[in-house]
Amino acid sequence: MQPTPNSPDARDEAGRRRPDIRGPVDASVVPRFAGIATFARLPRLDEVAHADIAIVGVPFDSGVSYRPGARFGPAHVREASRLLRPYNPAQNVFPFGAQQVADAGDLVANPFDIAEAVRQIEEGALALGEQADRLVVIGGDHTIALPLLRAVHRTHGPVAVLHFDAHLDTWDTYFSAPVTHGTPFRRASEEGLIDLTASVHVGIRGPLYAKSDLDDDERLGFSIVTSEFIEEHGLPAAIERVRARIGDAPLYISIDIDVLDPSHAPGTGTPEAGGLTSRELLRILRALADLRIVGADIVEVAPAYDHAQVTAVAASHVAYELISAMAPRD
Amino acid sequence: MQPTPNSPDARDEAGRRRPDIRGPVDASVVPRFAGIATFARLPRLDEVAHADIAIVGVPFDSGVSYRPGARFGPAHVREASRLLRPYNPAQNVFPFGAQQVADAGDLVANPFDIAEAVRQIEEGALALGEQADRLVVIGGDHTIALPLLRAVHRTHGPVAVLHFDAHLDTWDTYFSAPVTHGTPFRRASEEGLIDLTASVHVGIRGPLYAKSDLDDDERLGFSIVTSEFIEEHGLPAAIERVRARIGDAPLYISIDIDVLDPSHAPGTGTPEAGGLTSRELLRILRALADLRIVGADIVEVAPAYDHAQVTAVAASHVAYELISAMAPRD
Amino acid sequence: MQPTPNSPDARDEAGRRRPDIRGPVDASVVPRFAGIATFARLPRLDEVAHADIAIVGVPFDSGVSYRPGARFGPAHVREASRLLRPYNPAQNVFPFGAQQVADAGDLVANPFDIAEAVRQIEEGALALGEQADRLVVIGGDHTIALPLLRAVHRTHGPVAVLHFDAHLDTWDTYFSAPVTHGTPFRRASEEGLIDLTASVHVGIRGPLYAKSDLDDDERLGFSIVTSEFIEEHGLPAAIERVRARIGDAPLYISIDIDVLDPSHAPGTGTPEAGGLTSRELLRILRALADLRIVGADIVEVAPAYDHAQVTAVAASHVAYELISAMAPRD
Amino acid sequence: MQPTPNSPDARDEAGRRRPDIRGPVDASVVPRFAGIATFARLPRLDEVAHADIAIVGVPFDSGVSYRPGARFGPAHVREASRLLRPYNPAQNVFPFGAQQVADAGDLVANPFDIAEAVRQIEEGALALGEQADRLVVIGGDHTIALPLLRAVHRTHGPVAVLHFDAHLDTWDTYFSAPVTHGTPFRRASEEGLIDLTASVHVGIRGPLYAKSDLDDDERLGFSIVTSEFIEEHGLPAAIERVRARIGDAPLYISIDIDVLDPSHAPGTGTPEAGGLTSRELLRILRALADLRIVGADIVEVAPAYDHAQVTAVAASHVAYELISAMAPRD
Amino acid sequence: MQPTPNSPDARDEAGRRRPDIRGPVDASVVPRFAGIATFARLPRLDEVAHADIAIVGVPFDSGVSYRPGARFGPAHVREASRLLRPYNPAQNVFPFGAQQVADAGDLVANPFDIAEAVRQIEEGALALGEQADRLVVIGGDHTIALPLLRAVHRTHGPVAVLHFDAHLDTWDTYFSAPVTHGTPFRRASEEGLIDLTASVHVGIRGPLYAKSDLDDDERLGFSIVTSEFIEEHGLPAAIERVRARIGDAPLYISIDIDVLDPSHAPGTGTPEAGGLTSRELLRILRALADLRIVGADIVEVAPAYDHAQVTAVAASHVAYELISAMAPRD
Amino acid sequence: MQPTPNSPDARDEAGRRRPDIRGPVDASVVPRFAGIATFARLPRLDEVAHADIAIVGVPFDSGVSYRPGARFGPAHVREASRLLRPYNPAQNVFPFGAQQVADAGDLVANPFDIAEAVRQIEEGALALGEQADRLVVIGGDHTIALPLLRAVHRTHGPVAVLHFDAHLDTWDTYFSAPVTHGTPFRRASEEGLIDLTASVHVGIRGPLYAKSDLDDDERLGFSIVTSEFIEEHGLPAAIERVRARIGDAPLYISIDIDVLDPSHAPGTGTPEAGGLTSRELLRILRALADLRIVGADIVEVAPAYDHAQVTAVAASHVAYELISAMAPRD
Repeated sequence: MQPTPNSPDARDEAGRRRPDIRGPVDASVVPRFAGIATFARLPRLDEVAHADIAIVGVPFDSGVSYRPGARFGPAHVREASRLLRPYNPAQNVFPFGAQQVADAGDLVANPFDIAEAVRQIEEGALALGEQADRLVVIGGDHTIALPLLRAVHRTHGPVAVLHFDAHLDTWDTYFSAPVTHGTPFRRASEEGLIDLTASVHVGIRGPLYAKSDLDDDERLGFSIVTSEFIEEHGLPAAIERVRARIGDAPLYISIDIDVLDPSHAPGTGTPEAGGLTSRELLRILRALADLRIVGADIVEVAPAYDHAQVTAVAASHVAYELISAMAPRD
Repeated sequence: MQPTPNSPDARDEAGRRRPDIRGPVDASVVPRFAGIATFARLPRLDEVAHADIAIVGVPFDSGVSYRPGARFGPAHVREASRLLRPYNPAQNVFPFGAQQVADAGDLVANPFDIAEAVRQIEEGALALGEQADRLVVIGGDHTIALPLLRAVHRTHGPVAVLHFDAHLDTWDTYFSAPVTHGTPFRRASEEGLIDLTASVHVGIRGPLYAKSDLDDDERLGFSIVTSEFIEEHGLPAAIERVRARIGDAPLYISIDIDVLDPSHAPGTGTPEAGGLTSRELLRILRALADLRIVGADIVEVAPAYDHAQVTAVAASHVAYELISAMAPRD
Repeated sequence: MQPTPNSPDARDEAGRRRPDIRGPVDASVVPRFAGIATFARLPRLDEVAHADIAIVGVPFDSGVSYRPGARFGPAHVREASRLLRPYNPAQNVFPFGAQQVADAGDLVANPFDIAEAVRQIEEGALALGEQADRLVVIGGDHTIALPLLRAVHRTHGPVAVLHFDAHLDTWDTYFSAPVTHGTPFRRASEEGLIDLTASVHVGIRGPLYAKSDLDDDERLGFSIVTSEFIEEHGLPAAIERVRARIGDAPLYISIDIDVLDPSHAPGTGTPEAGGLTSRELLRILRALADLRIVGADIVEVAPAYDHAQVTAVAASHVAYELISAMAPRD
Repeated sequence: MQPTPNSPDARDEAGRRRPDIRGPVDASVVPRFAGIATFARLPRLDEVAHADIAIVGVPFDSGVSYRPGARFGPAHVREASRLLRPYNPAQNVFPFGAQQVADAGDLVANPFDIAEAVRQIEEGALALGEQADRLVVIGGDHTIALPLLRAVHRTHGPVAVLHFDAHLDTWDTYFSAPVTHGTPFRRASEEGLIDLTASVHVGIRGPLYAKSDLDDDERLGFSIVTSEFIEEHGLPAAIERVRARIGDAPLYISIDIDVLDPSHAPGTGTPEAGGLTSRELLRILRALADLRIVGADIVEVAPAYDHAQVTAVAASHVAYELISAMAPRD
Repeated sequence: MQPTPNSPDARDEAGRRRPDIRGPVDASVVPRFAGIATFARLPRLDEVAHADIAIVGVPFDSGVSYRPGARFGPAHVREASRLLRPYNPAQNVFPFGAQQVADAGDLVANPFDIAEAVRQIEEGALALGEQADRLVVIGGDHTIALPLLRAVHRTHGPVAVLHFDAHLDTWDTYFSAPVTHGTPFRRASEEGLIDLTASVHVGIRGPLYAKSDLDDDERLGFSIVTSEFIEEHGLPAAIERVRARIGDAPLYISIDIDVLDPSHAPGTGTPEAGGLTSRELLRILRALADLRIVGADIVEVAPAYDHAQVTAVAASHVAYELISAMAPRD
Repeated sequence: MQPTPNSPDARDEAGRRRPDIRGPVDASVVPRFAGIATFARLPRLDEVAHADIAIVGVPFDSGVSYRPGARFGPAHVREASRLLRPYNPAQNVFPFGAQQVADAGDLVANPFDIAEAVRQIEEGALALGEQADRLVVIGGDHTIALPLLRAVHRTHGPVAVLHFDAHLDTWDTYFSAPVTHGTPFRRASEEGLIDLTASVHVGIRGPLYAKSDLDDDERLGFSIVTSEFIEEHGLPAAIERVRARIGDAPLYISIDIDVLDPSHAPGTGTPEAGGLTSRELLRILRALADLRIVGADIVEVAPAYDHAQVTAVAASHVAYELISAMAPRD
């Protein structure tokens, strides 16, 4: 296979060809199911001088409290992302043509030592930062949001966190472990990585350990738009709340795929009934295109529980919508 | 494993510890995936003197007309219920802390003789009634609603039945069998077990055998809130209809999991397209918390057709929401 | 098994028995899971003198660009259609009693030669036209819409096309192949088979190859009701748009099952997140019952990716709703 | 689809065409995946005047003690049997050309009443006997062997039973039910249907209820070739034992698919580790071609537990090998 | 459910009832699919004064290098073990009647800290030793063999280890972690827990990291019977080798389920083609019944990759055969 | 991820490091589940100057007559090949250290035009021949063997073909298509690509279309070692036959994964019961290490029907054994 390095699909937001940008493999020459899988069949990061956005996997799931398996998430999402095409009509943008996007492969994280893994991920993200302006990360479990936020903080200082999830992930410790997939945002808040006035959870639902979970969470700097709120008040109200909360702060978006209902995301580790549809999630993301997104992650895709790539198709489209939202406009 | 008998999670609705109540195994000591599975990792009924609510399985599916397999429903729902946590923010209640809930194991029902099985189930439910005030039953197929209503009737007289289902289940006979999963509410109505002025089906959809099915159904005491009604008029209108119909009658809630759309409940015996989402079903149940619920069942979970426990996660959350709705408030 | 040829279920729209019509096998005599599978357990076409509607499979999938497997679609949908019952309360009609419906088996299509297959399908459809007034076709991939439209055109001239799909299917060529599952409506438009003033896509979403795809599509005679439009404006607005566009033109309905969200239709070849629910699709179809439907297809059911027949249950109900909409009313 | 009624594949054992026989649909004209599924794409029994062998399904599974679902066995085996081709080189015979074989559809059996079902099956088998000399039956659970043996007995008197199974199926009662899938051969022996000197179980393995099970079994007229015997002594020794036991008695062959190891037959109701491979089972069957086979059944295929049709492919090949063994030779 | 505490099945090796022993729930009273799952439906350890053998789960999988998920192994094996019956004809013993066997539930092991988990497992095993003479442990990943051998060593000193596995599990470190599922037997050897003259691997196959792996392994005290040896020389030769190596040393048996071929054990973490059949493994185990077995584990059952419980049925039968081999004989 | 380009695992057959060779990514630095998937985590062909062996995918399945899906075979096998380690003890060789092996990605093949695809594959293989001495090809369906043999013939002239398959693949035409997955070896024989004195099928079994299939096959230059032969006579006899037939001819090995039993290879398009185990197949391949292998393919892996990667694990190990057999020895 000699994929055409710069597919004719690579265009800017006005539809003009961008010869300086390497887009995905041209699907009119190489079938979508062919070729070694990179995200959306984009070039590898080592094939381009510099990337506006690097997609990078973090195959780490040693921080999960229930079903493991998200270590296979990056490979699974890459396979499902073969279906992504170059033009996003919902945002009227060529996400891979208006900016250079590339696949940076996976960061290494020690599966047997959470503390070391967290260090490796932070260092890996910082190192990538020299080759790419912004990262969109495919997990892996939610533990990885902590080192990613640490890396983001080095550049941007405290950021607004827009966190899509069924769960708060602001618990304190679990089995005396301070850093797991249930704690990244508590640690991040304690470390000053988060803009306490501009962060928000979306899609929260299901049982909690205690009533105080909610108090703790508020104290740590989050407001909440629950799944029930969306059911009762509708998406426009939810979007307005989210946008009002974030304002113009630099924004990190962290998406636990279990924010979707298990019908839409069976392949995840701690499923909760009563979640969002993928249509709802995509609509919210599209409403954020003018915000200052400095980085993002999509986590907790556990392929062993996925059927027919339902979860991975949703996750890869979520990444696509994020990348679209991050694309420059005139 | 020596699970702490009374987890610190056991609290009343105000968040006060209830030392007299044995809650679920403490998840900060024993991981959720560990231990012999009881519902929500609650104590067994033989471990407590008395229960306000007993969860009991009825692994019987010899009354099904299409896909069998709901005999494995109780075991499957128990496994999926490991994820339930102690505090329900949607109803602001500790369902396992404000009342003693325990797992009574499974009732025995002869798989080769429907009539005997129905007798066994009624007797088993009555016997349990000496150890537990109310039952939440995990089926099994819908046949079991008949003996359960017979048992409820002994204590409460005719009850309002709130029946969630894709199907009416008020057919007469099938292959000359009077008691199957398609007939419990006709038999119950004929036997005077049902309050004919206060019963209602929710979620009905799909083809019927004949137009007269609807007339029969009305004559047997049911009004109907179809899935189409919910699609067209929204949940608030549906909830109002349901509440208006039930009034303050003692209420038995019977939930065929196929009220959910097959995307939300693939693991069931007679799937019908066009159903409810789990978010919708949970919202309706939460709107019933002030009613006089005297018992409930959740039936027709067929694990062999379930993927990634999607159906069982929904069913266990449905049970959780029911138990929450049954919890005492100040 | 000697199924009763004319089940007591066969009735007209007023519920009167129709002794001249052979309905499905009587489910009170033969269990639904028994017998060689025809669609909805209807008679075969060779068992009736003439059919108002013939259901026919076209097991052809050599035109797919991604996941193949829709060649097994007809067999899979037949199995799932065993659950369909005779009376459709949502449209208040006996679809198999108010008209003679029969299963014509499958058309033959050469799997190794698209051009020949397309000829065979057109000829097969025309030949069937001598035994049946209208066809409801189960695919197979979307390639088959082209020869089916050619056959329809011979009788009806240009028809309005109501096309449910995630994708436009008006692309030009793919690997220099002019006839694939991505091109039927471009070819049909070019050939004058389509009423350019009355055709519409519903459910379109997801990335495109280029911005010009939309311009091409409009030029070919289609307007678009996107999935996003439905999310934002609701079904009534969408239905109104569709009906206004179609007017009273003779109408061909082509339903790619991927118009449904992957949660509702995992078993398909090019899944796209953010789709319709089966409840929404059924509601739209019910709103078309007074239109002049001259034929229909339901395509792209790929069983190898289906779980628990979720996709096939939806597809068979979609067919049922179409047949109901095509039934004569007083 | 107009399948050629008599495919050029229909030949006798010498390869001569047999114009009097309707063979399977010609696969060079109609692809194997096309058409309404009959067993091996053979004609239906109503399409031929008389059949040497009728294949008939008995979709009944109300006699199972563990996993139900074999009611869908006939449909599932029919689908998998599409792959069978006309010439069997292992037995050097055209099984569908040397004799007329046809698909008789399914017998009706009441799913709610074992006793009535057993009567229906016996009567159905007897009625079929007027149109077909011998039956090869696809179950359904093993309960059906009893009525089938009753029907065989009417014609042939006591027959040798060659029973392939992991389990003895000579238990007495289960939950006081005398007729279940664990008891057919005890009832048959008690009723005098079995030649007590010539019957044998093959493939028995796994735990029993009690030591006396073996004594009972011997008293009921069976000798045993265990799976362990085959592992230790090899197939030739096993085949010799089987043939020596049967001698020249008229022979009924009853094959519970769980005689195969769960790796070869996951889709069954009571799997036992340590079973036969399909290669071993086929070899044994081929060694029986000169015996006087008067009928056969293949039971306990439970599709909900089958993956990729592994079990059904094995079952349909088993049926094919039986039909081949029953074919006349010069 | 009030299971009869002492089923009539509880008997000694001569078939005499043992009223002092609590056997499994009586399957003639309670269907096999009913009741809260303990291993083989045996009593819990807290229901008996003392056990000869305790079955205990160790739901820990944080030591895996590839597919995780064995943390759900104990629950999965318990469910599959419902099928085990009381008499083992292959060893002519009532494994649950000739000795008291009970289910001790699961040991707690910190999923986020391998070192602490290993301490917890050793302590848990030692604590159980006061209530049960010997343990049969269901994993969890192979990491757990190290703490289990430490506990065994306290009582028995160095033991022969009979290790069934596709892999040597005598690697040194992985990502600088000394204790993972690839290293238990190296650590055990270094700590003097193993009888270096009497230990043996069975079923080894597949690629290694380096040639020196084999030298290291030999130096650590193991001989090897490869899967290839069994293929070429047969089971009797393999069994003789194993028995000759072990002699009369006290024996610990550690069975990684991946010793079976992936066809027999798909549900595992590091599958290797070319493995044993379950029939072969069971035969080897039966040949060990007269040895001095002091404990055993069965590990690496990963349910998310299991289909139709194929792996778990094999694993539960393996446990059954081990318990049978440990039963006292006259 | 910055994988170490030359892992310390890269060694020659004597275990000496080969600094000139780039081996797989070092698994002690990068976990096996991390990184963009190349076969066995080997370098891409563009990362090395020249390869002794190139692994290349041909994702083409438009030649299949039954279940399609092998177009996803290369991606699926790459994922499963992550488990392969550097030293093969069964052949005492470092397959990736004794020779340079690299992943060449996938060849492009038009999915809509078999004739063009066949041209593209031949040309692609020839072009690769300038960068790599020999190819090991991952299909794709068996159609691809024809263009691959054409390419091999250009260099080597007629070659012995050792063909592992359930089917002969020497049929003439199917639906008048001369080039499909059932015909490659007839076409190859007719074109003089095959050494008619040295070619052999192994593993053939199952029904044929006609007796003459065998005569045709013999005339085309093949002898046959059936699956039944292996069952009856054992592997050593089969291996001897194969080696005697091949002699010292240049050898092309073509492995249809359906040569394995469906239990070992469920993920394939035309499964046949009664096949080989993976242990048997691997043993045969190891016995060929001294032959003059000039190229090889492994085809018909259809991922949509694969469970837990059982088929892909077998296929990737088969490739590994082939590469090992092709490695130079002292």
